[in-house]
Amino acid sequence: MSVLVVGSMAYDDIETPHAQVNDALGGSATFFSTAASYFSPVNLVAVVGEDFKHEEIAFLRARGVDLDGLTTEKGKTFRWKGRYLANMNDRETIYTHLNVFQTFNPVLPEKYRDSEFVFLANISPELQYHVMTQVRKPKFVAMDTMNFWITGSLESLRRTLGVVDALLINDSEVKMLSEEDNLFIAARRVQEMGPKTLIIKKGEHGALLVHGSSYFHCPAYPVESLNDPTGAGDTFAGGFMGYLAMAGEVTEDHLRRAVVFGSALASFCVEDFSIGRLQSLSKADIGARVESLREMTRFSEDTRWLAGR
Amino acid sequence: MSVLVVGSMAYDDIETPHAQVNDALGGSATFFSTAASYFSPVNLVAVVGEDFKHEEIAFLRARGVDLDGLTTEKGKTFRWKGRYLANMNDRETIYTHLNVFQTFNPVLPEKYRDSEFVFLANISPELQYHVMTQVRKPKFVAMDTMNFWITGSLESLRRTLGVVDALLINDSEVKMLSEEDNLFIAARRVQEMGPKTLIIKKGEHGALLVHGSSYFHCPAYPVESLNDPTGAGDTFAGGFMGYLAMAGEVTEDHLRRAVVFGSALASFCVEDFSIGRLQSLSKADIGARVESLREMTRFSEDTRWLAGR
Repeated sequence: MSVLVVGSMAYDDIETPHAQVNDALGGSATFFSTAASYFSPVNLVAVVGEDFKHEEIAFLRARGVDLDGLTTEKGKTFRWKGRYLANMNDRETIYTHLNVFQTFNPVLPEKYRDSEFVFLANISPELQYHVMTQVRKPKFVAMDTMNFWITGSLESLRRTLGVVDALLINDSEVKMLSEEDNLFIAARRVQEMGPKTLIIKKGEHGALLVHGSSYFHCPAYPVESLNDPTGAGDTFAGGFMGYLAMAGEVTEDHLRRAVVFGSALASFCVEDFSIGRLQSLSKADIGARVESLREMTRFSEDTRWLAGR
Repeated sequence: MSVLVVGSMAYDDIETPHAQVNDALGGSATFFSTAASYFSPVNLVAVVGEDFKHEEIAFLRARGVDLDGLTTEKGKTFRWKGRYLANMNDRETIYTHLNVFQTFNPVLPEKYRDSEFVFLANISPELQYHVMTQVRKPKFVAMDTMNFWITGSLESLRRTLGVVDALLINDSEVKMLSEEDNLFIAARRVQEMGPKTLIIKKGEHGALLVHGSSYFHCPAYPVESLNDPTGAGDTFAGGFMGYLAMAGEVTEDHLRRAVVFGSALASFCVEDFSIGRLQSLSKADIGARVESLREMTRFSEDTRWLAGR
């Protein structure tokens, strides 16, 4: 089954304590669809400017991404420049040039409207809601959001939360949105706003899936060569949604594995700039990380104490 | 097999946003030995003042804690007052009255000197080292430390790190000690200082065991009624070391289960003030949390994508 993503495509300029790159292909829809394409066909809705390179289009198309929903507008592609601080986690935005993204109005091609798996990347909650009015009978809709919308567009955000199945969000943002410091209580508060499934991303601490009343925790793969965290969240989302779309149904078991595959994909993303590391992974590469994550959480039964010695 | 702990016994005054308690039994050796006593006999070395209540002594003795190493000095017991902020994680110290703890000089009773499992709670690295000169042939020594010693007594701390097997430490402290922001690289740097085994405590994010080159991650049990985090680290250590001492040998499998039991015990500790919740747990109580932690990390094999469909 294919997965629909509505989000941004961008060129990023990125500074880290160790390197600087310019004109790196970025944007939520880019990372998402590259990751998801390992598992399922992707339908992409985004906007780019006239400066967007043909080679990027060709790359995505070769990976099975349908680009009928990609529009090219007069002007320049969305550009973002960010600088990562020494801890490679906190970052500051040097500039954001929305360019053609400023007037982005996602219109789904007719053939996308029956999409069953939908990801609303981090765009305004109004646009996310607008997408929801165009899909006919989705089976599973997940959305992303960020502090900017939580503080600035809370009412719209809550309306969109009311019509989706799942929210992917950072741990600090789930606390901000719920106004609650306890992570587990915060998750329940947000579930009460709509989404019954939460995927809480915690960087080096892993990810927590809250599905109804059940919890699943996936650790972070121990990445030692962290070069650029940009896009890790969207890559996670791509692995997660791509895996679910491939599975074709949303069960607890599929959701758990989807979180593990999302984590595995995200661990590759951060090892290089842009989609550098995501372009040509093998099943063996991905499978090895999935098995590492399994090995990292394995513990055998206690046969002494609990059994009464 | 019994486990030796050298640490503090104290009375704490604690303020949280929701409650205030005074004269709560506290101290690293108290939390440690209460937790460890579920699994193995405990030998305790600490000092208290003349105001220390007989009922506390009786409680510990009834739990199988040998108190021949507990000395009572003229003066008052160590007192600490802390206030937890709204997030129940950050805290400020209102006062610390070391009292008799100021001149604590741990001397091991002869019968403790053959201890095979030793925990050096969070006392000065000089005193920790002094204990190490008194044990004859320990099988597994673990130590705790804190930012205060990392910034103020680094040389002594490194000497002690050089003679122990394991370090239990917070994630922020492992980064401070190694001067490295990447958690996984930080862990390796600290291993190079001596301890081949690290147990990195991450609060609501769980705990990471780094043993040689292997990683094991245990999530935090989802505690919703967090009432007082005081003593959680020492309780974790008590469950961890008590379990290992019961197992009698240090294998990867035992270490992993020890981390899970430590996590389970710590999850009870924070639900009440002092050792309130730790006084009378059943095997069924503890076993249920261990099984919750297993369920929280379980994911089944992918049989579609990796298998090639």
